Amino acid sequence: MMHPVKQIEIKVGMTAKELVQEMAASGVMGAGRIAKAAKIAEAMAQDKECKVFLGLAGGMVPGGMKQIVLDMLKSGFADVLVSTGANLTHDLIEALGYHHFQGHHQVNDAELNKQGMDRIYDSFMPNGVYEKMEDFFTAHFEELRNIENISQFLWKLGELLDKEDSILTVCYRKHIPLFCPAISDSGIGLMLWGKLAQGKEVKTKAFEDLKDMMELSWTAKKTGVIYLGGGVPKNYIQQAMQFSKGAMYGIQITMDRPEPGGSSGAELREGISWGKMQEQGQFVDVICDTTIALPLIWAAVKDKVSE
Amino acid sequence: MMHPVKQIEIKVGMTAKELVQEMAASGVMGAGRIAKAAKIAEAMAQDKECKVFLGLAGGMVPGGMKQIVLDMLKSGFADVLVSTGANLTHDLIEALGYHHFQGHHQVNDAELNKQGMDRIYDSFMPNGVYEKMEDFFTAHFEELRNIENISQFLWKLGELLDKEDSILTVCYRKHIPLFCPAISDSGIGLMLWGKLAQGKEVKTKAFEDLKDMMELSWTAKKTGVIYLGGGVPKNYIQQAMQFSKGAMYGIQITMDRPEPGGSSGAELREGISWGKMQEQGQFVDVICDTTIALPLIWAAVKDKVSE
Amino acid sequence: MMHPVKQIEIKVGMTAKELVQEMAASGVMGAGRIAKAAKIAEAMAQDKECKVFLGLAGGMVPGGMKQIVLDMLKSGFADVLVSTGANLTHDLIEALGYHHFQGHHQVNDAELNKQGMDRIYDSFMPNGVYEKMEDFFTAHFEELRNIENISQFLWKLGELLDKEDSILTVCYRKHIPLFCPAISDSGIGLMLWGKLAQGKEVKTKAFEDLKDMMELSWTAKKTGVIYLGGGVPKNYIQQAMQFSKGAMYGIQITMDRPEPGGSSGAELREGISWGKMQEQGQFVDVICDTTIALPLIWAAVKDKVSE
Amino acid sequence: MMHPVKQIEIKVGMTAKELVQEMAASGVMGAGRIAKAAKIAEAMAQDKECKVFLGLAGGMVPGGMKQIVLDMLKSGFADVLVSTGANLTHDLIEALGYHHFQGHHQVNDAELNKQGMDRIYDSFMPNGVYEKMEDFFTAHFEELRNIENISQFLWKLGELLDKEDSILTVCYRKHIPLFCPAISDSGIGLMLWGKLAQGKEVKTKAFEDLKDMMELSWTAKKTGVIYLGGGVPKNYIQQAMQFSKGAMYGIQITMDRPEPGGSSGAELREGISWGKMQEQGQFVDVICDTTIALPLIWAAVKDKVSE
Repeated sequence: MMHPVKQIEIKVGMTAKELVQEMAASGVMGAGRIAKAAKIAEAMAQDKECKVFLGLAGGMVPGGMKQIVLDMLKSGFADVLVSTGANLTHDLIEALGYHHFQGHHQVNDAELNKQGMDRIYDSFMPNGVYEKMEDFFTAHFEELRNIENISQFLWKLGELLDKEDSILTVCYRKHIPLFCPAISDSGIGLMLWGKLAQGKEVKTKAFEDLKDMMELSWTAKKTGVIYLGGGVPKNYIQQAMQFSKGAMYGIQITMDRPEPGGSSGAELREGISWGKMQEQGQFVDVICDTTIALPLIWAAVKDKVSE
Repeated sequence: MMHPVKQIEIKVGMTAKELVQEMAASGVMGAGRIAKAAKIAEAMAQDKECKVFLGLAGGMVPGGMKQIVLDMLKSGFADVLVSTGANLTHDLIEALGYHHFQGHHQVNDAELNKQGMDRIYDSFMPNGVYEKMEDFFTAHFEELRNIENISQFLWKLGELLDKEDSILTVCYRKHIPLFCPAISDSGIGLMLWGKLAQGKEVKTKAFEDLKDMMELSWTAKKTGVIYLGGGVPKNYIQQAMQFSKGAMYGIQITMDRPEPGGSSGAELREGISWGKMQEQGQFVDVICDTTIALPLIWAAVKDKVSE
Repeated sequence: MMHPVKQIEIKVGMTAKELVQEMAASGVMGAGRIAKAAKIAEAMAQDKECKVFLGLAGGMVPGGMKQIVLDMLKSGFADVLVSTGANLTHDLIEALGYHHFQGHHQVNDAELNKQGMDRIYDSFMPNGVYEKMEDFFTAHFEELRNIENISQFLWKLGELLDKEDSILTVCYRKHIPLFCPAISDSGIGLMLWGKLAQGKEVKTKAFEDLKDMMELSWTAKKTGVIYLGGGVPKNYIQQAMQFSKGAMYGIQITMDRPEPGGSSGAELREGISWGKMQEQGQFVDVICDTTIALPLIWAAVKDKVSE
Repeated sequence: MMHPVKQIEIKVGMTAKELVQEMAASGVMGAGRIAKAAKIAEAMAQDKECKVFLGLAGGMVPGGMKQIVLDMLKSGFADVLVSTGANLTHDLIEALGYHHFQGHHQVNDAELNKQGMDRIYDSFMPNGVYEKMEDFFTAHFEELRNIENISQFLWKLGELLDKEDSILTVCYRKHIPLFCPAISDSGIGLMLWGKLAQGKEVKTKAFEDLKDMMELSWTAKKTGVIYLGGGVPKNYIQQAMQFSKGAMYGIQITMDRPEPGGSSGAELREGISWGKMQEQGQFVDVICDTTIALPLIWAAVKDKVSE
């Protein structure tokens, strides 16, 4: 029994959720995938046996996605977070009182450099943040240097920052496991390097978190994965899935192509061969800029997520 | 004076328009572009001196975008339409009573072929439509064969189909200039070939429409362009812009890349060098699947468009 | 029996053909596809029953691909050519003695406009070409205006230009069928519009060429297709394939994505559902900038193509 | 003084280097960028004051690029290597005697899973490699567990493997600094997890390598960067550049788009705003599958690289 493609109808005043319902009735191409992602996200939210692993890559904080990530964490929708170091650094920067700014990508970068502005496509960040970060890490170095797990280290940052609208703080307060395997590859890493360069020791270990990460996957009755971008966060969750039963639900939002063979652009179904995804699972690859797709998907499911 | 990137906030029950306003407040990356496109569309709609040229390429009818295009035409938002032959063929097919169906892209195409299903990515069309089309063209051939302009030919199709929800009919009824330079490259073209192959003559001329098209551009006080996909529709409008004052407003939605040098992926600003765009114009390239971006943009501006 | 991925080895002084042989031995990802395309091109060249249809879209002449296209035509490798109007216009411009220039994409387009330079990504064309084109069309208008087929019209252009290194001339001299359904969407179209605007008549018909095009497909024992970019050229050849036995060989080079559902990005296997491709055919989608992939592929097969 | 775009000419028997020279004479679009990359690579090779940092991401070993990377290391062309964990794991797997296999991307992944084959796009890896890896890590665990730097840990792996054609071994033997910040996100990481899960300790630290990495950048007279893919390797090198004088030379090969704002797709010029790149530096973004672009570039410069 096949369903006809309903032509999407826009009504004045319609809610974002109704818009996604129209996309579901259309059911094809990008719109169909947005709708499918919303449906899968709702299924994850309502399946009480499902542990949701959220991977965060690309310029999500400079790109305006922080509040939605906070929603996912605060509401209990996401159970585990894996992030790039950059997104946590940008979160920390905002927690320290800085903003990112609306810029443009057609600019003279040398001119920007003179103005002390760092460019993240069309989002600008004042280079002065590094000084403030340094102050913060200097003030708290003793509390941080002896932590052996990266995840504990990040929770401690969240505790110290103590800001309602910080990803780091929310993970700490709600005891949401937060991983960042490549933490040294970030502004946070640079701050620690500053201390190492002064001959100080930092005890954080590289492999330690694997125990917790793998156990979270291993002990879950069911797992769901959400990848905002690819990179290490996706791959780190994928490898944890391989040693559980494989994910039952999956949503990936990316603009990367699969053909060149990298993990970031790989279709979710590829994971079935590895045992990272279940053959009978519900998956969708949304080929879209995350800053467009994610707000739309979240607007369609937020009411189904218990606060 | 720089604006901070506001983190996008999703509220339960928010309208699609409010969602785009959040994207405007964020102001960066894909979300920022969606919001900018909405702003420019609104400016076009409210600038009474502006003639809007709409280019339609890619699988817009099989992809569920027909109703939004009809909105744009019926409301007076779009003043001129340029389309691929394929979209007009799919419009005709739906006007003849057929549907497209929700399929999948991971299929056995040989199996589909045996089932008589033609695939347009994940939208399926029964091959049987060709017979019905043939009946239609046979019944009306005498009314069509002597029309010298492609645009008049298309209006005649619209008149004959006489369906409220057909792009062809709406253009005919509202006397909206409708161009399709590559009409022979389409199912409609194939139907005419059937007659030519029987030794009959079809008088439609290849260059004739240029007079009307160029005059529409030439006589406009201001022009705006909207490109859903690239191809001939974009290029044909662009070349008309070159011989007017250049477009004052521009929105392009595409996933094509600019680097390989084709017209479809070219950034709108490139048109400034040619005189196709005005230097002071308002333009935006939305890098997104049209079936995602267009519904969102239209939901944000439909209330500002006079019916 | 599976073949191991051989790590590609570069030897000083190796030929481009040997490089593609290394890619064949690797056999995966982009390199594997380049090698497969070369293998299929060789099979097409050596299958004497195969008629090869070449589709030409994107900035191929401004992008430096003209000589390879000429090779394909002069050597008898390509039997039928379908082009965008733009590529034929750029060919005509070069035949009139102009060049394209090496520019840059990071430029001030308004500045370029003042300098009279039209930009095609990073290839620049002096705007002055339009005057010279106008002189040419004024001088030859009487010879052109009464030609009823676009293909005959284009051969006549080739005859009049009479230049060894012109695609138009080579098609004329070698009687290679040359189609351009959207000819009015091009600089050539603009020239004709100039005459129409003066009240003159141009008799070229829109559908007429379909007879020849479809017969070329219909009467071929076997067919092969090569798509450099998508657009009308690809689609026009595809629709001809649908009414023959379907293509036996296929190579497509494109950077467009399949997911948004347009014809340009559609994978060749999709054509099997329509009957445009044979299930047992040999096909490959090369996801690459044509200006990189085509020279490499052609370097690997040129010695197998009879001059 | 502008240079005309020379139409690329293919000669039977031409070398790959001559092909790239033709691309240089064309000078535009993808071909122009390949040629520019070759020119910059040659400049890096011949500038004795330049330290070259190579970033390795995506499926480079399963994709057949290992031998070229080995060339770059053995010849002294690359002075520092930063890799994803995956590429080092695949290198280790090949050093243990396994191969990757030429597969296909249009497959039944559940079927593959039953056959014990893991898919990396169209490159297949037998799942049995994990057992052999486990044996290796069990045999050598005592030699590995107490190493505090990831880079020393990786050199030790190279020493233990002791294979001429292993990236790990070559880095060890030639004392080429080798970094992998996200080592825990890889098959190698999984092996260590196996030991941690047994209650054993692994002393490798997360931040320790930053000292060496930053000093390598800091002490260089000039720096050059080559990014095969993006991810952590690119970003880790970029952040080191920020705290030196900025890179003087840069080549990036990627298919990722810049618009969504992630680091992997970011144009190199963006780095100028951060001070990661020098304004007067020579940079190029090659928008291409690495498995196509890299062999071509390397074939053009290998003779200029001292063995």
